[in-house]
Amino acid sequence: MMSVTQKEQKNVRALLTVKGRKQQGRFVAEGVRLLEEAIRQNYLPEKLYYSDHLLTERGRELINKCAQAGFRLIEASARQMAQMSEVKSSQGLLAVFKRSDQTLGESFDGSCRRILLCDNISDPGNLGTLLRSARAFGFETVILSGRPTDCSAPKVVRASAGAIFGLKIIPAQYDSIRKFAQLKRATLIASDLNADESLDLNATMTDPLILAVGSEADGVGPEIVAMSDQRIRIKHEAGVESLNAAAAGSILMYMIYSNDRG
Amino acid sequence: MMSVTQKEQKNVRALLTVKGRKQQGRFVAEGVRLLEEAIRQNYLPEKLYYSDHLLTERGRELINKCAQAGFRLIEASARQMAQMSEVKSSQGLLAVFKRSDQTLGESFDGSCRRILLCDNISDPGNLGTLLRSARAFGFETVILSGRPTDCSAPKVVRASAGAIFGLKIIPAQYDSIRKFAQLKRATLIASDLNADESLDLNATMTDPLILAVGSEADGVGPEIVAMSDQRIRIKHEAGVESLNAAAAGSILMYMIYSNDRG
Repeated sequence: MMSVTQKEQKNVRALLTVKGRKQQGRFVAEGVRLLEEAIRQNYLPEKLYYSDHLLTERGRELINKCAQAGFRLIEASARQMAQMSEVKSSQGLLAVFKRSDQTLGESFDGSCRRILLCDNISDPGNLGTLLRSARAFGFETVILSGRPTDCSAPKVVRASAGAIFGLKIIPAQYDSIRKFAQLKRATLIASDLNADESLDLNATMTDPLILAVGSEADGVGPEIVAMSDQRIRIKHEAGVESLNAAAAGSILMYMIYSNDRG
Repeated sequence: MMSVTQKEQKNVRALLTVKGRKQQGRFVAEGVRLLEEAIRQNYLPEKLYYSDHLLTERGRELINKCAQAGFRLIEASARQMAQMSEVKSSQGLLAVFKRSDQTLGESFDGSCRRILLCDNISDPGNLGTLLRSARAFGFETVILSGRPTDCSAPKVVRASAGAIFGLKIIPAQYDSIRKFAQLKRATLIASDLNADESLDLNATMTDPLILAVGSEADGVGPEIVAMSDQRIRIKHEAGVESLNAAAAGSILMYMIYSNDRG
């Protein structure tokens, strides 16, 4: 077992910032549940820091398994862990992962059926919840367009409940999305606050399908509306301005998923 | 126009804490959108603080309307506003509202058809999102059970997008919920991670209907499960632990709402 160096601590702290994650091409996940989920998805950590005194029983079991599996374990004192950690009370477990930065072109192998497109989703909690629902409802790929929040930010990773480890997540420009949709003959359905129609489930029974959801303030942007085959709105009571973006996206994904399952 | 006193500033700051809100029986909402929504719901502020230099055009229009309507307007400097405000950059508008603490017994007038029961929802963002979806999907009453987060906390008010002003929100003990459900012959459907069945929409076509959603970690508690007529689960992909509580609740409310509308 090794002990954490000052340089490592500094590197991990830097991963709490957008800049640091970009420079290092890495991100952090903390806690037992997230690490279990990552391993279950076979998204293995590059480094695993643990602080013996802070571990729960479940955390200790996990660390023992990781040691047996030959993972690179690095010990940290409770104080060192607190300095590296972003959460208030650390569970004594912090893992560093490589980011898998893919592009739309190279990452598509034809198996792709259901794609969630998040346009300008800037709230980390909402993006994380959308990723979690995407994984639950069989949307195996997520495209991020506009000015999204960084999907490897700690808050997004946490809110995704580890879904981030099981999804293809691809930031993309509008131009490449348009080309991709054309090339794959994908149907693009955009959730749009100003649309009149509800989701037509018959139109979703086609591969591949791209479901676009937008920011709360502005909905899906004009670039996405322009390339959409259908614009739809979730019906709700009059006098209500809009739904939470993550709630709206989850409802639409669930409807498409249920319909797929028949 | 009056100017804000030091005592008032102190009182408003105290409303950022659970204790202060309880002691004063009041809560705070900031920003143009929330205040517009409150007024639209006829939930009028008791006091309205504004800081002229910070107002947007839309904010200034709103203040002018409020002045014409005879609201109690109190001026604050940008610095005073920053001290009272909970958000990073204040829009120069902060309103204080009386809480409407109701109990299950007195607040039911028979018009109540769709009730959302939030059991142990402790995350403010999730509770706010659930309130927002409740309002959008015709659930006019929300019962809070277990150890809920305070629904008049600033984060909840914000995440509710003002839905808090248009709903009956009632904290209640399990005992009174059980008695209430029996007295009203309400059907109670509990979302339960361990249930086998999906939502049976035929069973929801009855008045009143109570839909219970639980915390993410543990789902609906045993007290609620014990009094439920039906336990249901949202179907999703295998290997996914659970959905976000607000996403799950929103999906179920939407399904019931859509079915009601036929």
